Amino acid sequence: MTRLTWGLIGGGRGSQIGPAHRLGARLDGLFDFAAAALDADPDAGRAYAAELGVPSDRAYGTWQEMLEAEQARPDPVDLVTVATPNHTHYEIAHAFVSACINVLCEKPMTMTVEEGESLVRAAREQGVLVGVNYGYSGYPLVRQMRDMVASGALGAVRLVKAEFAHGHHADAADADNPRVRWRYDPAQAGVSAVMADCGIHALHMACFVTGQQPERLSADFLSTIPSRALEDDALINVRLSGGATCRLWTSAIALGRQHGLTLQVFGETGGLSWAQEQPNQLFWTPVGGRTEIIERGSGGLSDAATAGSRVTVGHAEGMPLAFANLYADLAADIRVLRAGGTPVSLCPDAEDGLRSVAAVHAAAQSASQGGAWTDARPPLLR
Amino acid sequence: MTRLTWGLIGGGRGSQIGPAHRLGARLDGLFDFAAAALDADPDAGRAYAAELGVPSDRAYGTWQEMLEAEQARPDPVDLVTVATPNHTHYEIAHAFVSACINVLCEKPMTMTVEEGESLVRAAREQGVLVGVNYGYSGYPLVRQMRDMVASGALGAVRLVKAEFAHGHHADAADADNPRVRWRYDPAQAGVSAVMADCGIHALHMACFVTGQQPERLSADFLSTIPSRALEDDALINVRLSGGATCRLWTSAIALGRQHGLTLQVFGETGGLSWAQEQPNQLFWTPVGGRTEIIERGSGGLSDAATAGSRVTVGHAEGMPLAFANLYADLAADIRVLRAGGTPVSLCPDAEDGLRSVAAVHAAAQSASQGGAWTDARPPLLR
Amino acid sequence: MTRLTWGLIGGGRGSQIGPAHRLGARLDGLFDFAAAALDADPDAGRAYAAELGVPSDRAYGTWQEMLEAEQARPDPVDLVTVATPNHTHYEIAHAFVSACINVLCEKPMTMTVEEGESLVRAAREQGVLVGVNYGYSGYPLVRQMRDMVASGALGAVRLVKAEFAHGHHADAADADNPRVRWRYDPAQAGVSAVMADCGIHALHMACFVTGQQPERLSADFLSTIPSRALEDDALINVRLSGGATCRLWTSAIALGRQHGLTLQVFGETGGLSWAQEQPNQLFWTPVGGRTEIIERGSGGLSDAATAGSRVTVGHAEGMPLAFANLYADLAADIRVLRAGGTPVSLCPDAEDGLRSVAAVHAAAQSASQGGAWTDARPPLLR
Amino acid sequence: MTRLTWGLIGGGRGSQIGPAHRLGARLDGLFDFAAAALDADPDAGRAYAAELGVPSDRAYGTWQEMLEAEQARPDPVDLVTVATPNHTHYEIAHAFVSACINVLCEKPMTMTVEEGESLVRAAREQGVLVGVNYGYSGYPLVRQMRDMVASGALGAVRLVKAEFAHGHHADAADADNPRVRWRYDPAQAGVSAVMADCGIHALHMACFVTGQQPERLSADFLSTIPSRALEDDALINVRLSGGATCRLWTSAIALGRQHGLTLQVFGETGGLSWAQEQPNQLFWTPVGGRTEIIERGSGGLSDAATAGSRVTVGHAEGMPLAFANLYADLAADIRVLRAGGTPVSLCPDAEDGLRSVAAVHAAAQSASQGGAWTDARPPLLR
Repeated sequence: MTRLTWGLIGGGRGSQIGPAHRLGARLDGLFDFAAAALDADPDAGRAYAAELGVPSDRAYGTWQEMLEAEQARPDPVDLVTVATPNHTHYEIAHAFVSACINVLCEKPMTMTVEEGESLVRAAREQGVLVGVNYGYSGYPLVRQMRDMVASGALGAVRLVKAEFAHGHHADAADADNPRVRWRYDPAQAGVSAVMADCGIHALHMACFVTGQQPERLSADFLSTIPSRALEDDALINVRLSGGATCRLWTSAIALGRQHGLTLQVFGETGGLSWAQEQPNQLFWTPVGGRTEIIERGSGGLSDAATAGSRVTVGHAEGMPLAFANLYADLAADIRVLRAGGTPVSLCPDAEDGLRSVAAVHAAAQSASQGGAWTDARPPLLR
Repeated sequence: MTRLTWGLIGGGRGSQIGPAHRLGARLDGLFDFAAAALDADPDAGRAYAAELGVPSDRAYGTWQEMLEAEQARPDPVDLVTVATPNHTHYEIAHAFVSACINVLCEKPMTMTVEEGESLVRAAREQGVLVGVNYGYSGYPLVRQMRDMVASGALGAVRLVKAEFAHGHHADAADADNPRVRWRYDPAQAGVSAVMADCGIHALHMACFVTGQQPERLSADFLSTIPSRALEDDALINVRLSGGATCRLWTSAIALGRQHGLTLQVFGETGGLSWAQEQPNQLFWTPVGGRTEIIERGSGGLSDAATAGSRVTVGHAEGMPLAFANLYADLAADIRVLRAGGTPVSLCPDAEDGLRSVAAVHAAAQSASQGGAWTDARPPLLR
Repeated sequence: MTRLTWGLIGGGRGSQIGPAHRLGARLDGLFDFAAAALDADPDAGRAYAAELGVPSDRAYGTWQEMLEAEQARPDPVDLVTVATPNHTHYEIAHAFVSACINVLCEKPMTMTVEEGESLVRAAREQGVLVGVNYGYSGYPLVRQMRDMVASGALGAVRLVKAEFAHGHHADAADADNPRVRWRYDPAQAGVSAVMADCGIHALHMACFVTGQQPERLSADFLSTIPSRALEDDALINVRLSGGATCRLWTSAIALGRQHGLTLQVFGETGGLSWAQEQPNQLFWTPVGGRTEIIERGSGGLSDAATAGSRVTVGHAEGMPLAFANLYADLAADIRVLRAGGTPVSLCPDAEDGLRSVAAVHAAAQSASQGGAWTDARPPLLR
Repeated sequence: MTRLTWGLIGGGRGSQIGPAHRLGARLDGLFDFAAAALDADPDAGRAYAAELGVPSDRAYGTWQEMLEAEQARPDPVDLVTVATPNHTHYEIAHAFVSACINVLCEKPMTMTVEEGESLVRAAREQGVLVGVNYGYSGYPLVRQMRDMVASGALGAVRLVKAEFAHGHHADAADADNPRVRWRYDPAQAGVSAVMADCGIHALHMACFVTGQQPERLSADFLSTIPSRALEDDALINVRLSGGATCRLWTSAIALGRQHGLTLQVFGETGGLSWAQEQPNQLFWTPVGGRTEIIERGSGGLSDAATAGSRVTVGHAEGMPLAFANLYADLAADIRVLRAGGTPVSLCPDAEDGLRSVAAVHAAAQSASQGGAWTDARPPLLR
């Protein structure tokens, strides 16, 4: 099986997310790193790309240059990852989609609902893939939860408890550090800070696992440091399409939490509990029974959970492998698409990205109106 | 030091809470179990009291009989605990207070805010003690949290995350079990089920630890089993008097949670995390530092935390000892009061009980109005 | 049911173990604290006893005085607890047993095997109870383990992993503190320090749970601080009578461990894991199945585990309640004995105490001989 | 920086360890998978290699063929990994070393001490690298422990507690499953089963972290299933070269343990605790202080711990990334060696491999002699 080719936009030297994408794309040997436009500084981007082994003729100075050149080739990259600043996602992703090049876009997919809808429409029209990097959905035991819900093990889901809390922005003395400050600046971050950055993952995971979508929501935003225009802590209450409620807390001021993405799902006949910081165990409690510890890599897991595992039970797996599962999903989808089929992987797609963006906007609006219940659905998907 | 005398109303044979009170009252040897009216069936109550060692002349058939007889004695009981069904708390507690007998009342203290205010007024007028059994506030490390907040270790508190979730009412097949059903019947339970039963503890603990009181709140109630008129899951967002927000989740359908009372407190300069099911460790994270594990019974704890411990570090202590700390508080308060002083113990009092009742009512009202922000303060304490 | 009477020897002001015994004896209201000889200083002992509510005519200056007076009464105490320095246990316990007074003796029961055998013989001859305070055996889930093994749930037990490690004697700078030093002084502590103090509990628990007894053992002792003549860390390998092996580690230099008494039992068809610092959960893994969390107080536990619980599931219970279970056992045994029956409680008895003493001596001997395999059985019980 | 070339011997279709090596070698993009001899069946091996993208002219049928061809090339592979059955490690590794090709050898490096010594000598003579795959030593927090010990944070190390316990061979009904049985067959496994398979990792880690080597040891082996000739549970007590003692337990019958590799290190001034199944947290207790949780990826870690991390704090990392750290070490070492320098990476080398083999043999000998203290050092390194 020949490798697919992959390009990366953004993720220049010093970036955190760039190396993670390179790791994810490389991990299973499914993609060759064939093209790049890594940096706002063209020369720096080209030099870094060369250093990373990208052929010099495909080490581009800008994404526009990359788009033009790749379009002109008989063999444009099979997939391009957009890991640039948030407010540029839409323009870049849309341009590549329009050129019939598959895209994996960082979250939030777009800054506005309108942009999100436009991208969904473009993807439909072009018949290309747009994945959105909700990387935590790649964890095997997250997929196990999804499959347990889908199989009916929990009966109807009543409640989802989702959290994504950290304390890395709690220090008032550090609030003006540029690395932190931009996230709370509406000009750069849009309508939401921690909800758009972290809570969006927890909400996506709640939807991914339950197979339900946000319908209406009520939100409360706190901004606990005076210089901040956007929220650093949020509580969201979401009615989901299948009748469940999702209670979601996200925070950047939760000193002691590191990357506290957790999910609890409570149904008629059982409950599940999972935490990203200890991702290899899933706690399952059937009604009337004892809590059982489901180990990643153990027997009896769902097909998706088993397929998403790479090492044997008891060996810790972590986030980069979850991430790589999305790249593996996309590789499979690309091959299916090329063969004329319909992609069926679990990789979050543009509609998922759009729903999240709509929910973030609804949350910001609700919060500005004292928690008024607000329609969370993008008009296109109502 | 002579022992004080203690009486118990309610807690007949088969009761869960009766034995816990007897344990708490007996544990430090501060009280003699001197009087009782244990059961709605006078004969059964008298017989059980005799069996438990209560002198036969003070083994009463009814609380009214007990009130009359104790009042008439030169040495009425020093403290009476009211552990009867919720809707009778007010009448009984008020009668004993009116007779100048100190009371420890089970929660919720009263069914209405008006009753609560009446009881507060009566206690003030009579100059007697009314404790309310928020027993979890007796845990040494809960008191340590309170003292750390009071000492300024956290700076201003920004956020409190409080939970009290269990899954013992999740089974729809068990919903009509009388042991469960009454809790969801407005005629017996009033305006709220799980918030009044469990969430009230979490809210009190948030207030106890921060020294702040509920001002306004917004609530969302779920009733996930069709036959239930009251909520079995609730999310409450509370603005506290000192500027912090308390985000509170309580549930009776959280399969896998047993008695999940947890508290996280996030301030400007540090965060705390504690869980009732593992009460002997407290997690403390100073801003910019590592999380430290504070062990109950270790050196360097606050006076209240040290005083509330009975065995050395590393030996588990549990809920009955926390409970006993409230009895020890009340014993000390009674002696102070007798000596003409002002009680200063940490035992929750009638004002705490009233505030909780008002908050529960405000939550029920808010929930019925789509989460409208509602004044949580009892009129008497505004 | 009238209360039994109880006396305490040792446990004067400032003692750690004295309050724990008073708590244990009082907790269920089964005993009245009727007699005491609390201190090496007779006046101090009498004064403290009076303060604790012991009638003045039974607040003795010495244990000899107490023995003489109680013997002379028509109603001597029903049970006396010996909580004096280790080297006095034998003389005192033997004297009371000889006077036909039931005894609960602190561990180690005696300093030598010969003394232990003498006490066992005396108890047999007098037909009185001698309990030994392996208090951790009172935890409900320890009893659940015992019952699961006895019921065959694990099949034949292959291996027991027992630990009791703490770090409270790790500080070389504190080694000469009198509170610490005596434990490492052969003149006061005998042949062993941490094994006799802590490891003995872990070994007893292994035997209690499996129903097997030590037969042969090999030991390695470390003394990591130069001034110490006795071991502060030990590894013991024990062949048990039923074919299982117990691998036991005990330490006083394990910085980070508080009171790390843990037990793991591995059989043909399942494994168990329990830790004293989180005593309300037991982890059970059937062969080929998932690990399940057994909660204290939940349904489906053994009779002994259920009887030993006092509060409902999810409420932490701790060590004082475990301790109280031994007092409840002894109270029941005393009544059975008085009624002419044969005591059947789970409270460790003189033979258990003797076996432990013999094992400690065998360990010390083995350690002094490079780990030579040594008979661990007391001659009397071979 | 051009990629190095890498070859793999063993790891054919269905192998567990093969994919892990391919993952480790690929993860950082430092090696191209350039040559392979994957299977005992030459055709199967060639076909699988081709499928994995190995150029057809370097997809060999046998390791001998591979050796001959690579030797003859101007650009033989830079590194070859030997992941064949244990008894073939020596012959293959020695042959490649003799051909001046760097080797990463699976553990145990050889079946006998003599072979191990021969391989060490060959590596010295040829001046090539021989790494041994103690993959767990690649975890960032394991390297943090090593650096904390080396920096003196713990003072002199007194005791190391090492465990590697699992329960995957506990089922007697599964004992004759060929996948399990060979491990307990001396003809295939040599002198030891679980010690050579698992305990060897724990012992290496103890040495890696403390910088001390095994000198003398005493061992106890259990074989709990009748058909087994080799041990499925072992306890080893090891005196290390720097004065510390290592107490090591390893088991294959520990139902409930998955891959329970844990390390606790106790020194004069602090203690450390780490567990492979939750590898992103390290517990550190300074004498007289509270236990602190050190998070992988947080600030203030040692250079090696920081360099070995790939994603930010709070994101789980797992075993494949630890594994990849060894490949990164070897890549760096190869470049240093080529440049005429002296490799200094942390990757375990042939001397480490030899020491482990000698310790396993000493343990087997000690166990066969009732735990007699046995020299654990290979003659070459005494």
